[in-house]
Amino acid sequence: VIRLYGYWRSSASYRVRIGLELKGLHYESVPVNLLRDGGEQRAARYRAINPQGLVPTLEDGPQRITQSLAILEYLEETAPEPPLLPRGAAERARVRSLAQVVASDTHPLANLRVLQYLTEVLGRSPEERHAWIRHWLAQGLAACEALLAGHPATGRHCHGDAPTLADVCLVPQLYNARRFDCDLSGYPTLLRIEGACLALPAFVAAHPSRQGDAVAG
Amino acid sequence: VIRLYGYWRSSASYRVRIGLELKGLHYESVPVNLLRDGGEQRAARYRAINPQGLVPTLEDGPQRITQSLAILEYLEETAPEPPLLPRGAAERARVRSLAQVVASDTHPLANLRVLQYLTEVLGRSPEERHAWIRHWLAQGLAACEALLAGHPATGRHCHGDAPTLADVCLVPQLYNARRFDCDLSGYPTLLRIEGACLALPAFVAAHPSRQGDAVAG
Repeated sequence: VIRLYGYWRSSASYRVRIGLELKGLHYESVPVNLLRDGGEQRAARYRAINPQGLVPTLEDGPQRITQSLAILEYLEETAPEPPLLPRGAAERARVRSLAQVVASDTHPLANLRVLQYLTEVLGRSPEERHAWIRHWLAQGLAACEALLAGHPATGRHCHGDAPTLADVCLVPQLYNARRFDCDLSGYPTLLRIEGACLALPAFVAAHPSRQGDAVAG
Repeated sequence: VIRLYGYWRSSASYRVRIGLELKGLHYESVPVNLLRDGGEQRAARYRAINPQGLVPTLEDGPQRITQSLAILEYLEETAPEPPLLPRGAAERARVRSLAQVVASDTHPLANLRVLQYLTEVLGRSPEERHAWIRHWLAQGLAACEALLAGHPATGRHCHGDAPTLADVCLVPQLYNARRFDCDLSGYPTLLRIEGACLALPAFVAAHPSRQGDAVAG
């Protein structure tokens, strides 16, 4: 049995759901509510599963795996079809690099715990918090646009004509950017690729709004 | 010819240097001074090499690869010996997860550009900036300590008795934490593993102080 501990609106959880759906793997969702009671992810019960106190965590039988990109590489190794990485080492590096632009340079800066620190510790206003989010998301999305637009390996998707780890990271980041009213008009390539992704059943099934713990509004 | 564009004190550059040294690969260093003229990494000349304007970038003949973890995975695939990842999928996931705790959840929050934003845009004091750094580094290092201490797979190094991607990420993060006077006494497992790493010639050769562009003091 595969079990995914996650939160409907968590970008990292969303990535893993897309990966599972693309691989056609059946899994059970265990919601961890990041906003209830100061965050269920910080409670002892969840920390026994993931000492870092962050979502997602994947359970695959006796194995427990944390960190979305480590989980996705694990899925790629244990369920190779359809592949989420191309064949050649340089091509694989391009896809992993795009995934890291999102996962290391963009998403962590607009994460819930960082926003909480800006408000609660540094006493920043909602406007400053919003400007912070938009600044870092714009940096990350502009980097993705620059790396994708006009590159000969970019196709219908980030790399070629089938989704890879790069698309798996990009789509949740764009969802996240819309939540925070970022202006996306400067990223035509990203929007085109997002459109191609959202036409695929795996991306539809993994969408936050389709999760059992989603809250309307 | 392998060429590494980096900066002596950049944590991500340091990771790649360790990887190259562990693999016994000969490479040429091209210094990119992050502090000169508002940052050489932002200049058009370097952006032609890496549109994201961050270090490191690896050139391997005609290939250009960015993002330290993508570079390290590329080295693992093109120069498999000695391996920086264990054999089994679950074991590989553990190592990659530890690497991501550093590369996604810890390092990006105390990065130069983030610190510049805190000072220049948010007008925070040097003390608040320091507290910010120490807060996020402590979160990340405590997570590493929790994942490593007492885990049956932890050995002389993060995973078993030879260095892996996890050690490659951990050692530069500890160097970085010392620069900012973080209290490391709560991380005995990390310090023990760091000691084992720094006894190896590859880690010695990759150390910031040994780089041609290092500035004394």
